[in-house]
Amino acid sequence: MAGKTNNHGLFTTGEPVSAWTVSTALPVTYQVAFTPQLLNPGNPALASAGATPGRRLVVVEETVHALYGDKIRAYFGTRGLAVELGVLAAHEEVKTMESVFRVAEWMDHFGVSRRAEPVIAMGGGVLMDVVGLACSLYRRSTPFVRVPTTLIGLVDAGVGAKTGVNFGRHKNRLGTYHPAVATLLDPAFLATLDQRHLSNGLAEILKVALIKDRKLFELLDRTGEALIDQRFQGPTPGGEVLVRAVHGMLQELQPNLWEHRLERSMDYGHSFSPTVEMRALPELLHGEAVCLDMALTTVLAQRRGLVETAERDRILGLMRRLQLPVRHPLLEPETLADALTDTIRHRDGRQRFPLPVGIGDGCFADDLTAAEIGRAATELEELACVAP
Amino acid sequence: MAGKTNNHGLFTTGEPVSAWTVSTALPVTYQVAFTPQLLNPGNPALASAGATPGRRLVVVEETVHALYGDKIRAYFGTRGLAVELGVLAAHEEVKTMESVFRVAEWMDHFGVSRRAEPVIAMGGGVLMDVVGLACSLYRRSTPFVRVPTTLIGLVDAGVGAKTGVNFGRHKNRLGTYHPAVATLLDPAFLATLDQRHLSNGLAEILKVALIKDRKLFELLDRTGEALIDQRFQGPTPGGEVLVRAVHGMLQELQPNLWEHRLERSMDYGHSFSPTVEMRALPELLHGEAVCLDMALTTVLAQRRGLVETAERDRILGLMRRLQLPVRHPLLEPETLADALTDTIRHRDGRQRFPLPVGIGDGCFADDLTAAEIGRAATELEELACVAP
Ligand SMILES: NC(=O)c1ccc[n+]([C@@H]2O[C@H](COP(=O)([O-])OP(=O)(O)OC[C@H]3O[C@@H](n4cnc5c(N)ncnc54)[C@H](O)[C@@H]3O)[C@@H](O)[C@H]2O)c1
Ligand SMILES: NC(=O)c1ccc[n+]([C@@H]2O[C@H](COP(=O)([O-])OP(=O)(O)OC[C@H]3O[C@@H](n4cnc5c(N)ncnc54)[C@H](O)[C@@H]3O)[C@@H](O)[C@H]2O)c1
Repeated sequence: MAGKTNNHGLFTTGEPVSAWTVSTALPVTYQVAFTPQLLNPGNPALASAGATPGRRLVVVEETVHALYGDKIRAYFGTRGLAVELGVLAAHEEVKTMESVFRVAEWMDHFGVSRRAEPVIAMGGGVLMDVVGLACSLYRRSTPFVRVPTTLIGLVDAGVGAKTGVNFGRHKNRLGTYHPAVATLLDPAFLATLDQRHLSNGLAEILKVALIKDRKLFELLDRTGEALIDQRFQGPTPGGEVLVRAVHGMLQELQPNLWEHRLERSMDYGHSFSPTVEMRALPELLHGEAVCLDMALTTVLAQRRGLVETAERDRILGLMRRLQLPVRHPLLEPETLADALTDTIRHRDGRQRFPLPVGIGDGCFADDLTAAEIGRAATELEELACVAP
Repeated sequence: MAGKTNNHGLFTTGEPVSAWTVSTALPVTYQVAFTPQLLNPGNPALASAGATPGRRLVVVEETVHALYGDKIRAYFGTRGLAVELGVLAAHEEVKTMESVFRVAEWMDHFGVSRRAEPVIAMGGGVLMDVVGLACSLYRRSTPFVRVPTTLIGLVDAGVGAKTGVNFGRHKNRLGTYHPAVATLLDPAFLATLDQRHLSNGLAEILKVALIKDRKLFELLDRTGEALIDQRFQGPTPGGEVLVRAVHGMLQELQPNLWEHRLERSMDYGHSFSPTVEMRALPELLHGEAVCLDMALTTVLAQRRGLVETAERDRILGLMRRLQLPVRHPLLEPETLADALTDTIRHRDGRQRFPLPVGIGDGCFADDLTAAEIGRAATELEELACVAP
């Protein structure tokens, strides 16, 4: 704390300091680990994550509870951990502060201790974002543990620091940075996920591939369809895809966890998509909206000479094979202009627009115009129409 | 980011890493400065605080707006700053997420940029805590500037990092750590504050005095009543009282801004008071509840031999002269027991109870019993009855 001598002339009693600079830093450390057989009672990982065993409040997504509730109860029962289960419906339309309040009420009722009883969040990205925000707010931060059960959860929502809910028709407008003390990744949960949500998660993996990991693109190109068919449980190995995606994500997040740098390559696909996703609700899933954004910006990048025509077509082709949308009526001038306006605010007055460079690399642009975006949208529409 | 070799045997594709430790730190720097003549158009401080002049959303507490609205408009008008004013009623009973939502809606409507347009919060502790939380949540953190207009605001709510609202009958149960980039302190606002709110603020100053600054206690003892009478504007110099209070507060806050250490001397008077304040709503003000807590624990400390009888009586006497309450029907076994239970949870399973040692020093206790607290409450009641 640095003090400055008063030179405002207010105080006449001779006190030395009337201005201060407070300077400090918040250290943050958290774990992300692939942990197979998470619900096998022989595996201590979940029971001891973030703290020694004790009591736990476990917030489980409704569908996950229907599918895994018995296993979850059996797990904690066998390990002798007293748990209370809160079952929360979680999807984009109830990604609201109301859901956060429900979790906070459960925390209150449970009487969660300030540091020693991390809340366990089991579900997809929405569930984790909601529980994360509740824990972040409760007593100004209570630890929590994440167990993602969707593909987006495993490779994206589960590994970063962001929490959030939608507010006033804006995506994730209210939130915090509050990483889980530990995230345990078990791809076995994907066994029950439907094709659409697997494709949805592959969109975020494709994002990492396109903007920074060509090898991951090649892997997706080769194995993506099989991974969907086999839900990551079959003979086609999905481990490397998952690990590369998480690794790539964390490489970008760690040095910029609080987004002080607003040029974020992980924002690729997230410039137009927040507005498109919210306006299309409940039609489009998060990853689908991201994919539309990437399809559009791939075409735009090709028009700028950043991506070759053959690469563009390979990318759009892979998107289709992963059963992701590449066209949508909301990719029209007005929505795209509104989206860009809000994104510029979000990036503090500049576009800082991530664009792909070839496959596996990216750059940032500040000079997109409405006309250029409109032309790219028209061309994408034409390409999407003629494609098989 | 540290990676560990996969030893779970899940992945057979030879990828090297399947567990990560993310380790980083959030640097935080903020200014707190006495800035007299804040609303004098010749003073650039408010217009430029936290950023270069531009647009600003100013959230002003209702009463403050009635008293200073014209001056505020004139200030920004003269300085050529485009402002939008949001007028918010703020008192303990509307210290809720609903108020936070209103501010967030204004921010949305204003289209506040992510970093360059700090929201200005002008009002007491409630207004600043509410606006601070809205800014903390909006886009996961938007900068803001605080202009406290009450005594509690000047010496306490305006100088730390905490934001918060009440939830489920619990005081400040939802909140964040999000300090204003700058807090500008102008004691001129106290000219319109009533006696009760001046006394209320003096309670928090007395807290700093009792637990760590004997000289401040002597100052309060000598000048406190006059400062109330003159509302800090008269011939009795109040500067040293204010500066010592802020300085003492910041000395404790800076090394422990996120409360990783739960032994906090600034928690003195805040062990029983959160529950008492909420149960008495709207009867007791924050500082009044804090004073009751300090009166009770002063008696308790005297019974433990930590405070001499004469010191105890001097303390209780000063509280009375500052027109602060020293007795209340809620200082009874059941409420005190409930309060202690919640405080123990808040301090992660231990009491970590700040107690005064003499005047101007303190210690932490972990061994208070219900019986001891009850006896102290009875004795306080007796002392309060017989006192003049
Ligand atoms: N915090 C972050 O950094 C971050 C990153 C990316 C995405 N997100 C957010 O994540 C959300 C999308 O996440 P999502 O795709 O997981 O959606 P989601 O949370 O809505 O889950 C999708 C559906 O899957 C069901 N489900 C979950 N697990 C299942 C399982 N194992 N088997 C069968 N069904 C299951 C759920 O019931 C739900 O209906 C978006 O709101 C997005 O903003 C956050
Ligand atoms: N964040 C922190 O670190 C922190 C620290 C201490 C207290 N607090 C919080 O602060 C709150 C108490 O703050 P407070 O005492 O300022 O109460 P308050 O915000 O309720 O304000 C008290 C009253 O004063 C009026 N007022 C404000 N400025 C005025 C002026 N210049 N002239 C005339 N009237 C004026 C307001 O209309 C209000 O009715 C509590 O909720 C407490 O929890 C927070």
